[in-house]
Amino acid sequence: MAGREFELIYRHLGIFGAGPQVRLGVGDDGAVVALPPNSELVVSSDSVVEGTHFPDLTLPEYVATRAVAAAASDLAAMAADPLAMTLALTLPEPDELWLHSFSQGLERCVQSLSLPLVGGDLTRGPLAVTVTVMGSVPTGSALKRSGAKPGDRLCVTHTLGDAAAGLALIMGKLQPTNDIPFEDEEFLEGRFYQPTARLEWVTWLREHAHSAIDISDGLLVDVEHMADASGCACTIDSSALPLSPALTRLGRELCLDWALAGGDDYELAVAVPPGVMLPPGLSHVGEFYEGSGVQCDVSPTARKGYDHFGA
Amino acid sequence: MAGREFELIYRHLGIFGAGPQVRLGVGDDGAVVALPPNSELVVSSDSVVEGTHFPDLTLPEYVATRAVAAAASDLAAMAADPLAMTLALTLPEPDELWLHSFSQGLERCVQSLSLPLVGGDLTRGPLAVTVTVMGSVPTGSALKRSGAKPGDRLCVTHTLGDAAAGLALIMGKLQPTNDIPFEDEEFLEGRFYQPTARLEWVTWLREHAHSAIDISDGLLVDVEHMADASGCACTIDSSALPLSPALTRLGRELCLDWALAGGDDYELAVAVPPGVMLPPGLSHVGEFYEGSGVQCDVSPTARKGYDHFGA
Repeated sequence: MAGREFELIYRHLGIFGAGPQVRLGVGDDGAVVALPPNSELVVSSDSVVEGTHFPDLTLPEYVATRAVAAAASDLAAMAADPLAMTLALTLPEPDELWLHSFSQGLERCVQSLSLPLVGGDLTRGPLAVTVTVMGSVPTGSALKRSGAKPGDRLCVTHTLGDAAAGLALIMGKLQPTNDIPFEDEEFLEGRFYQPTARLEWVTWLREHAHSAIDISDGLLVDVEHMADASGCACTIDSSALPLSPALTRLGRELCLDWALAGGDDYELAVAVPPGVMLPPGLSHVGEFYEGSGVQCDVSPTARKGYDHFGA
Repeated sequence: MAGREFELIYRHLGIFGAGPQVRLGVGDDGAVVALPPNSELVVSSDSVVEGTHFPDLTLPEYVATRAVAAAASDLAAMAADPLAMTLALTLPEPDELWLHSFSQGLERCVQSLSLPLVGGDLTRGPLAVTVTVMGSVPTGSALKRSGAKPGDRLCVTHTLGDAAAGLALIMGKLQPTNDIPFEDEEFLEGRFYQPTARLEWVTWLREHAHSAIDISDGLLVDVEHMADASGCACTIDSSALPLSPALTRLGRELCLDWALAGGDDYELAVAVPPGVMLPPGLSHVGEFYEGSGVQCDVSPTARKGYDHFGA
């Protein structure tokens, strides 16, 4: 990196790198971050590419919020406390206005998720963002996909399907018989553009859950990953799925499709052992038992999950 | 990620994730890595994009080796021991043959650099690779750019300019008056395609050096970063630059251009305090003193360093 590239990075991104754990932020060959004593590092990388993960001409602010949420969501699923992130941005041309808007989204993520930005790479090329998030867990306490046990309840955080409905609205693919209230449209599109990484659940998960996964590919697909890794079967009760009022107003059949097969919400699917009281915001939607495979009383008509290279 | 994408990742990349420090590798929401006691995390992200950082149709094996070396080189410059890396790959289409060749390069890096691959993301899009490397240093001992002091010697590892000459050969931009021996061509192009991250210097640097930076943008530009960050001036003696026999045979003027202004070697520039004996492989090429700016007895005719968004 050199010259103007440095300037751009420093002006727009370097200011988001502070935190008590950050010993050295953006500007050297690498950043230095301190972990709490007796803890392990948790790390995950996620890329989002224009046209594949978000529509062309998405507001740069939302490119940032989606990219960071997608990565940070993995920390939540591992029950890891946030430490820091790096962000590699590929941009066709230097563009002050674009970077300004992108930075606004990034700033909101840094603050709301307590994830200081400690490293960046800005290169010329087709628009893409790769975020690497780092977190910490007390040694041995990371929550794995393979931890679910027969008898556990399958629970999910908040509401499902909103982001997939939001994307359908954004792409003009939704033809409802009734007009959609502006507030509903705003809410659903916001759930796509600005998903919330559920880091507020980390402490509870570490204390109570057996296993967790973030729902990025759709509930059915992601629960299947969890059940397979755990050597369990799982049932899902469609009538128990938590749906937002805005989603419900779009009609029941579409709702269930999106809630079961739409990814992009970045909510968490959690295996909770019997006897643990469920706090508000966590819905009991199914059961783990001996066997294999995932069963649901309805079968979504939409594609099953999200496969970048799939048919 | 889902379905075939999973398969591709597991088949080609997941097998490179083992190491005593890796508590959980590829396949969960995040990886878990243990740091040595009383150490800090060092992290750096680097992206390489087809057409910007490497010529179109570069052998996939070399795309991997260059991408990993560029990132790992930052660990060497911070005097950090390697811990692990994540790799985000964007590929236009799934391509078994491409991934097979890419994996061969990756495997060599994982083994030669002791950098297990603990996370991956494979997405569809224009060819690009983002590597995030993680390392560890004993608490407080990371080597910063700002550590050089007046009186220190400027030293560089191994030889400079080879990779830039290799790139000129690859791009057909070199018109020597004499034929170039095949062995020289092979050596110089190899230095571009398969640079070596100088992790073998980490221990020595931590014990003896005041400061280090990796030479990715060219010696003059990178030493300027170091001198500026350290509040020092620096002189470089062109007659002391370490040049390989293959490079020397291309003619003195071109050699100096590449050695001073060509990036891509990923050698290290190091500030070594007086009185420290220089081991083989480290050449004394200049001096730090009070003041500011970098002076050299010759001025390269080529562009000064590498600026992605520069003129």
